[in-house]
Amino acid sequence: MKMKEFKGFAFVEGGVCAAKGFRAGGIHCGLAHKALTEDAPAAPVQGKQKNDLAIICADKPCTAAAMYTTNKVQGAPIAVTRRHLSDGRAQAVIVNSVNANTCNADGAQKAERMCKAAADALGLAPEDIIVASTGVIGQPLPIEPIEQAVPELAQSLSEHGNAAAVEAIMTTDTRPKEAAVEFSLGGVTCRIGGMLKGSGMIHPNMATTLTFLTTDCEIAPGLLQQALRDVVGLTLNRVSVDGDTSTNDMVCILAGDGAGNEPVHSEGEAYDTFRDALYAVLMNLARMMARDGEGATKLIECLTDGAADDRTAEIVAKSVITSSLFKAAVFGEDANWGRILCAVGYAPAEFDISRVDVTLASAGGSILVCKNGAGVDFSEALAKQILSEEEILVHVTIGDGIGTAVCWGCDLTYDYVRINGDYRS
Amino acid sequence: MKMKEFKGFAFVEGGVCAAKGFRAGGIHCGLAHKALTEDAPAAPVQGKQKNDLAIICADKPCTAAAMYTTNKVQGAPIAVTRRHLSDGRAQAVIVNSVNANTCNADGAQKAERMCKAAADALGLAPEDIIVASTGVIGQPLPIEPIEQAVPELAQSLSEHGNAAAVEAIMTTDTRPKEAAVEFSLGGVTCRIGGMLKGSGMIHPNMATTLTFLTTDCEIAPGLLQQALRDVVGLTLNRVSVDGDTSTNDMVCILAGDGAGNEPVHSEGEAYDTFRDALYAVLMNLARMMARDGEGATKLIECLTDGAADDRTAEIVAKSVITSSLFKAAVFGEDANWGRILCAVGYAPAEFDISRVDVTLASAGGSILVCKNGAGVDFSEALAKQILSEEEILVHVTIGDGIGTAVCWGCDLTYDYVRINGDYRS
Repeated sequence: MKMKEFKGFAFVEGGVCAAKGFRAGGIHCGLAHKALTEDAPAAPVQGKQKNDLAIICADKPCTAAAMYTTNKVQGAPIAVTRRHLSDGRAQAVIVNSVNANTCNADGAQKAERMCKAAADALGLAPEDIIVASTGVIGQPLPIEPIEQAVPELAQSLSEHGNAAAVEAIMTTDTRPKEAAVEFSLGGVTCRIGGMLKGSGMIHPNMATTLTFLTTDCEIAPGLLQQALRDVVGLTLNRVSVDGDTSTNDMVCILAGDGAGNEPVHSEGEAYDTFRDALYAVLMNLARMMARDGEGATKLIECLTDGAADDRTAEIVAKSVITSSLFKAAVFGEDANWGRILCAVGYAPAEFDISRVDVTLASAGGSILVCKNGAGVDFSEALAKQILSEEEILVHVTIGDGIGTAVCWGCDLTYDYVRINGDYRS
Repeated sequence: MKMKEFKGFAFVEGGVCAAKGFRAGGIHCGLAHKALTEDAPAAPVQGKQKNDLAIICADKPCTAAAMYTTNKVQGAPIAVTRRHLSDGRAQAVIVNSVNANTCNADGAQKAERMCKAAADALGLAPEDIIVASTGVIGQPLPIEPIEQAVPELAQSLSEHGNAAAVEAIMTTDTRPKEAAVEFSLGGVTCRIGGMLKGSGMIHPNMATTLTFLTTDCEIAPGLLQQALRDVVGLTLNRVSVDGDTSTNDMVCILAGDGAGNEPVHSEGEAYDTFRDALYAVLMNLARMMARDGEGATKLIECLTDGAADDRTAEIVAKSVITSSLFKAAVFGEDANWGRILCAVGYAPAEFDISRVDVTLASAGGSILVCKNGAGVDFSEALAKQILSEEEILVHVTIGDGIGTAVCWGCDLTYDYVRINGDYRS
């Protein structure tokens, strides 16, 4: 999937290792066994067992910021990570797939043991470790294979370990998802990179999203958290695969000082550049996640503009990309614009439906299908050609103002049902 | 599907014709042609073209009440029916399937022409006609076949015409949906009956629901509207097939005086009986609709109790029955209770998740799968047996109070994707 440009930021390789001072690694510790070979045919490395345990480590303690799921049910690793990040500092991340370590009585204890094992192997304090888990919920986490594997995991750390790490956090993901950009602050080259897992599980459960970001750009803790919050609101929080908010969602960023830039300590041009670079990374990861949604064959991007404000535009765009009926129509490459207008119409926001236009676009062309809330004649042949592409843009224009938003989703397919209708084991 | 008992009300045959003074009819007028034979294999009468035009007529003017979709996009028939019901009176209903007469510039004019044609054939005023349409939106309604067929339609009116009428409003419905009950007010026997279409279209579009109810129980207009509003809130508004709110939803009730009861003119015992009887009818129609949701193989009923109030219970139950992940798990007969708890957890209401229990039940048995927000050991074999049934009850208990609610949904299947991914023509 091609990176989507944003304000000319240069994309670079390396994912979570792109920024100076960060290494990563990943190994197979044994959580993933039978189910892996059966249910994850798209595991990135054929002929070997998929990695299931990942690590990221910075050379020095970092400023850290994070955001978590809003679900009342929260995985034990979230509680532990919250506690460890209460001082705004962290130096490493350990994360397993296959088991979410959620809704188990001993979950917090086991999450702490993961941190302790990583800390011992890295010579750090457990409080400087971020821990995350993704997989089936409500089944006790086998902690022994993890603890036994951590020394080897630590040895796998490398400046080129991002690929091994991203493999380890994949579940029903069919593609690894990484992005990194380079930017200049006062003549100093900085980088932000990240990896994301999202939209499925090996033991299918929920579309858990975990995102880990690193940067060598020194920035004040408050600004780091603010940039993360603002950009996540514009990216990860604008993706929906199936409307189910996971119990284990987490996004965290570690900011070191490897670039040697003048620290970003206040809002202004440097902060804006940092935030935009973060947007370039997370927007692309968000698009990758939607495109790789469970069973998806197409990315749906809904751009709403002309709204009274950005919030209204977001509500409308989200309503479109979450409509099961429209998602199924996109799978069928059917220009059934009535479903788009229907989803616009039931979006919980105030606007004048009689001033809504809808255009469908892709690499295959662009076509107006609805003007002022009513159908217009259009070429079904061209519409079909547009919808035959892999990335579909739905452009909804409201006649009320200048509010705008982009949201991302995917089509609803037989494979979504297959993946999620399968047994857990 | 077996009727579900409620307070001992006696179910009777006859649907919209069960109440004294009402006749109904339905014919094939020609809106449904090619698509019908291809896309509606389950049309109730094999070997003939499915009815697509229905009529209901009362012997005398009736008190009428109605509720409509909350979508900003509303079908033209809704605007016309609203106008005709502004005096709270009506005597007949005309409704077509195949085309929703929505988002067309000339929609209101054509809806008026349907009323005029019906009024002329029945010797009534157009303002006494309720009009409804269901089908694909954004395509001009062919009015000529309807106008030409109305005289024949009027002649089809009969005291046993309910089956012909319900066939005419079916779209991708695989079963006709009718219910009627008998009850006694002051020693006088009264009846309420109805028919419903819901959950699909021949040209697949949105899960449009139309419901038509009749009663021979004389009741004051304000109480009729109040009973309808209250009961719809507990029944039709607690069903979701795919979360898409249609543009053409309508439920209306015609109340005549055929039973000869002492008119219900105030709240009290008689009103309560009327409302309960209406609940018995609409609750069963709601269950039928959910069971016959597009592609569905199972009915999912979620009962939430122990909530701080009924509203909280409803929010939680709705969250469960609309979760795509859980719906797919039910299709796979997988007791993946983590998805239930996840959906409970992201329900937008306040409660203590650590006091939530979940039980799965059906004709196959009952099993506790989650206690105080955490998993408990259970027999996967028994769980599988429970989920192999056609009607699945999810019982969610919160430890906060006495609020309770029931919501209905269905599983998410390959056929849902097939039906809605198909081309419009």
